[in-house]
Amino acid sequence: MVGIVESRHRNAFERAHIALTDEEKGRVEVADFGLNDLEQIGLQLVIYINTERVCSKEMVLFPHQTCPEHRHPDLIGADGAKVRGKQETFRCRAGEVELFVSGERNVGDIALPPTDVTVFHRVLLRPGEQYTLYPDTLHWFRAGAEGAVVSEFSTMSRDETDIFTDPRIVRTPEVGA
Amino acid sequence: MVGIVESRHRNAFERAHIALTDEEKGRVEVADFGLNDLEQIGLQLVIYINTERVCSKEMVLFPHQTCPEHRHPDLIGADGAKVRGKQETFRCRAGEVELFVSGERNVGDIALPPTDVTVFHRVLLRPGEQYTLYPDTLHWFRAGAEGAVVSEFSTMSRDETDIFTDPRIVRTPEVGA
Repeated sequence: MVGIVESRHRNAFERAHIALTDEEKGRVEVADFGLNDLEQIGLQLVIYINTERVCSKEMVLFPHQTCPEHRHPDLIGADGAKVRGKQETFRCRAGEVELFVSGERNVGDIALPPTDVTVFHRVLLRPGEQYTLYPDTLHWFRAGAEGAVVSEFSTMSRDETDIFTDPRIVRTPEVGA
Repeated sequence: MVGIVESRHRNAFERAHIALTDEEKGRVEVADFGLNDLEQIGLQLVIYINTERVCSKEMVLFPHQTCPEHRHPDLIGADGAKVRGKQETFRCRAGEVELFVSGERNVGDIALPPTDVTVFHRVLLRPGEQYTLYPDTLHWFRAGAEGAVVSEFSTMSRDETDIFTDPRIVRTPEVGA
């Protein structure tokens, strides 16, 4: 199973003409968020850089695959000072992505993913289009029929501090062999 | 002249399969650093995002074109507090880039660009390869024979605070029409 997943996300990066080193190909992260339903809920990603100040990732979503709803809250650091939550820009490189964020609902009835979602302000991202999320904004996103490749530019990623709407979710990444 | 430059950088983005929106194509920045020798010294770039916390750009270098040597120093903010200099990761997407950073010289005699350079620790970046620079590190870079497309992931860009080695340099961007 991991082998099949791996060749699918590698093919997706190749189709989008995104060059990865062999080292990067060997550490593509497959996140199923503990729901064991990767075809419908999950994310495949390579972390390019993640330091205290800057993070960037390249993500693959399979056709209709959903990244579940979550937010990046402000935190209190060890010294008691406020640590601002993650700010992130999603840039669609290939395929199409529906990004749903908090705000006025602008879609009618839509097919719901098999995970809890509560925000329905839709932003459609086609190749070259992007959207920036500021801390603590609820969001989820789903690829279109052809899947998608999405770049993320952000402040530091601290996945373990993300707050998911679906109480079943555990953000334990599985690293592809 | 601007028209010719513009079609060259558009072609370079297209060859590298990097999708830009029409709005982005209309605001590609052409930086000749005030040296009026764009074929040899300069940079063409699109700023995807530049906020107080995060910046990302896509850059095109023409064949053998050089981005001149500079550094991003720490600063003192209006409130007297230290503002850390820019941290940036260069990721080669297409072509080849020679990045030169401070540190032990690891090249012999090389063809010098027509702008002052003083650091000669060379890092060669091919597609999928990247390098992260921390604040105040002197660096310059130059594309190979086929030119290059380079992504930058960084903290906020404040170009006006960059310190260039070549005293002739003025960082006044010219935005392509």
